[in-house]
Amino acid sequence: MTASQSAAATEAGRPKLAFRPLPVPQVDIRGFWGDRVDAVAARTAGILYDRCVEARMLEQIDPDRPSPGVVIPFHSPSPDEADSQGAEFTGSTVTTQMFWDSDWGKTIETAAYSLYRRRNPELEKKIDAVIDMYGKLQQPDGYLSSWYQRIQPGLRWTNLRDCHELYCAGHLIEGAVAYCQATGKRKLLDIMCRYADHIASMFGPEPGKRKGYCGHEEIELALVKLARATGEKKYMELAKYFIDQRGQQPHYFDEEARARGADPKAYHFKTYEYNQSHKPVREQDKVVGHAVRAMYLYSGMADIATEYGDDTLRAALDRLWDDLMTKNLYVTGGIGPSAHNEGFTSDYDLPNESAYAETCASVGLVFWASRMLGMGPAARYADMMERALYNGSISGLSLDGSLFFYENPLESRGGHHRWKWHRCPCCPPNIGRMVASIGSYFYGLADDALAVHLYGDSTARFEIAGKPVSLVQTGNYPWDGGVSFEIDTETPVEFTLHLRIPGWCRNAALRVNGKMVDLDAATSDGYAAIRRAWRRGDRVELDLEMSMGRIFANPQVRQDIGRVALSRGPLVYCVEETDNGGGLHRLALPRQSRLEAHAEPNLLGGIVTLSAAGRRTDTENWGGDLYRAEPPATAEATLKAVPYFAWDNRDHGEMLVWLREG
Amino acid sequence: MTASQSAAATEAGRPKLAFRPLPVPQVDIRGFWGDRVDAVAARTAGILYDRCVEARMLEQIDPDRPSPGVVIPFHSPSPDEADSQGAEFTGSTVTTQMFWDSDWGKTIETAAYSLYRRRNPELEKKIDAVIDMYGKLQQPDGYLSSWYQRIQPGLRWTNLRDCHELYCAGHLIEGAVAYCQATGKRKLLDIMCRYADHIASMFGPEPGKRKGYCGHEEIELALVKLARATGEKKYMELAKYFIDQRGQQPHYFDEEARARGADPKAYHFKTYEYNQSHKPVREQDKVVGHAVRAMYLYSGMADIATEYGDDTLRAALDRLWDDLMTKNLYVTGGIGPSAHNEGFTSDYDLPNESAYAETCASVGLVFWASRMLGMGPAARYADMMERALYNGSISGLSLDGSLFFYENPLESRGGHHRWKWHRCPCCPPNIGRMVASIGSYFYGLADDALAVHLYGDSTARFEIAGKPVSLVQTGNYPWDGGVSFEIDTETPVEFTLHLRIPGWCRNAALRVNGKMVDLDAATSDGYAAIRRAWRRGDRVELDLEMSMGRIFANPQVRQDIGRVALSRGPLVYCVEETDNGGGLHRLALPRQSRLEAHAEPNLLGGIVTLSAAGRRTDTENWGGDLYRAEPPATAEATLKAVPYFAWDNRDHGEMLVWLREG
Repeated sequence: MTASQSAAATEAGRPKLAFRPLPVPQVDIRGFWGDRVDAVAARTAGILYDRCVEARMLEQIDPDRPSPGVVIPFHSPSPDEADSQGAEFTGSTVTTQMFWDSDWGKTIETAAYSLYRRRNPELEKKIDAVIDMYGKLQQPDGYLSSWYQRIQPGLRWTNLRDCHELYCAGHLIEGAVAYCQATGKRKLLDIMCRYADHIASMFGPEPGKRKGYCGHEEIELALVKLARATGEKKYMELAKYFIDQRGQQPHYFDEEARARGADPKAYHFKTYEYNQSHKPVREQDKVVGHAVRAMYLYSGMADIATEYGDDTLRAALDRLWDDLMTKNLYVTGGIGPSAHNEGFTSDYDLPNESAYAETCASVGLVFWASRMLGMGPAARYADMMERALYNGSISGLSLDGSLFFYENPLESRGGHHRWKWHRCPCCPPNIGRMVASIGSYFYGLADDALAVHLYGDSTARFEIAGKPVSLVQTGNYPWDGGVSFEIDTETPVEFTLHLRIPGWCRNAALRVNGKMVDLDAATSDGYAAIRRAWRRGDRVELDLEMSMGRIFANPQVRQDIGRVALSRGPLVYCVEETDNGGGLHRLALPRQSRLEAHAEPNLLGGIVTLSAAGRRTDTENWGGDLYRAEPPATAEATLKAVPYFAWDNRDHGEMLVWLREG
Repeated sequence: MTASQSAAATEAGRPKLAFRPLPVPQVDIRGFWGDRVDAVAARTAGILYDRCVEARMLEQIDPDRPSPGVVIPFHSPSPDEADSQGAEFTGSTVTTQMFWDSDWGKTIETAAYSLYRRRNPELEKKIDAVIDMYGKLQQPDGYLSSWYQRIQPGLRWTNLRDCHELYCAGHLIEGAVAYCQATGKRKLLDIMCRYADHIASMFGPEPGKRKGYCGHEEIELALVKLARATGEKKYMELAKYFIDQRGQQPHYFDEEARARGADPKAYHFKTYEYNQSHKPVREQDKVVGHAVRAMYLYSGMADIATEYGDDTLRAALDRLWDDLMTKNLYVTGGIGPSAHNEGFTSDYDLPNESAYAETCASVGLVFWASRMLGMGPAARYADMMERALYNGSISGLSLDGSLFFYENPLESRGGHHRWKWHRCPCCPPNIGRMVASIGSYFYGLADDALAVHLYGDSTARFEIAGKPVSLVQTGNYPWDGGVSFEIDTETPVEFTLHLRIPGWCRNAALRVNGKMVDLDAATSDGYAAIRRAWRRGDRVELDLEMSMGRIFANPQVRQDIGRVALSRGPLVYCVEETDNGGGLHRLALPRQSRLEAHAEPNLLGGIVTLSAAGRRTDTENWGGDLYRAEPPATAEATLKAVPYFAWDNRDHGEMLVWLREG
């Protein structure tokens, strides 16, 4: 499959200004992200496969072996749930085993992009074998679910609300597209097209079809990917149907519950806000419920808004975006403070130590932000994508690619550490596939424009007006703000190059072939636009001041009042016990203290640290009292901060993002 | 029963310096505490009875009615508990219905002291009827437990660890002593003596007796009360046995679990620290586990240390006291931060918003502190008793005596309010009986000394050397620090009057019959001692400066760093939304701001409020951003603080004890 195939995938009538990500194989990544991709290719991809096997996931999908049965016990989310009786049949209780197909899908996707990066015949053979099993497992009608075929036969399509059936299909579709793009092997893609055809025969507006959609969104964005990869408009239409139908009355989840003999009111999460089906999507204006589900829904909505030029969806998305950005976002790009619903609570409620901020949710925010850029370059989305990428999402993966965070708190008393694996292993393959496909987030291609959303050493290859172009980006981003581009093309080709001017950057300068560009005049929506007939050797130089400073939170965020976070460029910083000693709550940063940046090439793979003169409240001279009338003494202390994403890669200890001021 | 009976209750050989509380009927209370006692007598006592009846507690104890069966469901503390199968038989799951006898015991005790305060023939008739039921219920051998007789017959003495069997006996004993003291009616006292005799025949060091003790301490201090009230030394001996035996090896709870076919390791709370039986009491040095259990144990230990002059117990108690005071105490006198074990966590872990700080636990701390004073006047105990009384315990009762707190957090976002009742209704009758018996905490009587532990309008009647004395205390404490005493006695009587000089008081002056006393010379362990032959009309005047100021927490308490609490005299203050507007986290108090006190006779029953010039972080001019580089603006704001005990008696809203400094 080539870029032109992908670009031609959808039909005429699509909006001309739609920007689509470049497929992963069209972008070579070096530098900061190159190191991350290498870690995933060298370690994470293989670890994911091994851990899936250890968890007995292979047994579930292999029709040549006996079914493993229920390996991970059902657990009712709450012991007093009304319809927890007969759990296996009503599905009101859940086992993570229900979505093992999605773990395979994401593992295949990670492997696919990793194989593109670095040949690994052994891993490729293993993935091929997994795909063969799925091929054997698939029913003649196209249906494919290891859970419903091997563990709970006879119950398919009876509980879309809880059981992740279409969600699993979506992740296998994403895996199929990636594996085809990276290896050229179509087998899984063909399997998943047959399954998608089956789904399209079961769900849709036509009489006799089911009017349902999945309780965990994912199938929508996956079908868009499949439509783009195959050119099959019906997959796009089905994605649109799932989005349009969500939250309509009579409510599908009510009817489905009654059909299986359950009381719809006995739903554990009480409200359909949990899965964003509480109202039709175009009427939604608050980010609610399970954070990953919300991000996947909005991602699908943004894709459909892009593909159909649907301004009603776009208006809803902008309301939702504002709500997230202004009231429900951690400074790291983490989202979803509560473990209870793995999601959102109330506006401005952003506890730091107990922050859930699931890795998957930040990855989902990257997905959503990147898809908002499909409707045209706008720094509000790209800045957010960058912040979530560099902070709250890659914090979920250790620097060597071997260990994972599920939760990403902004404060730890020393007890929070990376896991080898997780009972609910959604995050490891999610961060794996995101990192391995990072190239596709860098650039957006429209009919006569290329947008550069992210900076970093890389080479992009694409076609505009049928002419192949390559763009070589060099620099030492994010440690340094100097970025240069060189164009290579056989013949001159006219298009607009959009370059993001990040919101955090206080001073930027742009030169084309050495000539200064008037940035104020050239910039719109946070992107500088240069339109010209580009020739081989044309050179663009961008100087971004790596602005460093303090971040303050809206005073309505009670957890951050009187506190300050530190940043440099796109990176949010934290202090760790290993650099600053224990008792980080006793550190304070006076407002007038000057911040200094230090390049430390031998620390944590090469980073820039920040330091400042702070104060530490003294414990030695306090004595034994718990309370007293005299304030404690403070002493000078130099604070040293490291990028948040890099924490917990050395000695275990405390960590703190929001420092006390004073 | 008279004071002399009580004083004569224990035998010769007891330590001469033991100070025992005056029985409630010997102290008339007026002023601040008089208002509280009146609220309990006028409302709380009747409410307690009514709520017990509504909860169907009467049906459980009345042998003339059919057993109600299990009304409150069993609940396993954890669904994955290993021996939760066959819960009714192993008792590893618990229902609060198991300790309804204790609710009756405390309700009877509250009613008893209330009847002494204020005649109420209707309530007295109801309590008499309850006592008649217990009389009928009691088995010929003396055994008495509505749970084991009416709901789970055949299982008595099979699970002392979890099922509160001796705990219930203890509370009924306390109720019996109180009812006899207040009404002169001996029926319940006789019933409980028979039951105590039965218990003494079942438990003890003698061969053939069980070597057990209760998982929830209470029987120990109750048996001491019973011994003092009846003069029966064997009750004192049994109390001592339960204390001496606790935590010995082989561990009784292990053996008991095996005997009923359960695995001792399947204990839900994992460690016997939960019920303070992890090691023998004389080896304990950390306050651990369930806070109320700990306080009741230490109270019993202090009684036994007093009665037996046992310095080994006293040494353990002083270690435990230090541990609580220096590492595990809220500034309000609340204790036990965690809901999970209703108790202690780790040193310096004192979260404010999620503080459990059960009302019962602070009441228990008052019990313990008051009993430490049995070993002689020492302000360290009395200051703590006063702090817990005026803050973390009476916060549990609304000013009108009708509503209750179970948890007593030090910060609320507006969602924490008093309850009419509670699923586990231990706190309402506990705070009820403590307030109704407050007179007994004011004074401690030894053979030739009287200690004044608490100040407040009151009259105490007692005998020293066989001579009746009355002491009339007047003043407007705690709002004003001027306190005067007048002595009335037929003939001169020599004894030492010990007057507490509170630790919070920066300046104090003492005059006897107008003549200044050299306080430095007269004071030891925080009490000024005046020994003389007292005559009718002798007058003692004490002037305590009602010191007002800031309290700082040990910097190891991360939740209070950079924060300050306000106090005046024994009272800790808080700010409420109703006085200060919402968003209390946005208020800050500069260190140099002067505090002012204001008498407000028409507010909250007449209190002194505090005010200071503070700063409020502005939200109006911040705009819509969640994060930005510029700090928020602040504006002047006058802070108004009210005593913590009085919060949530007006409009619902936020509350905060620890104000930000700055």
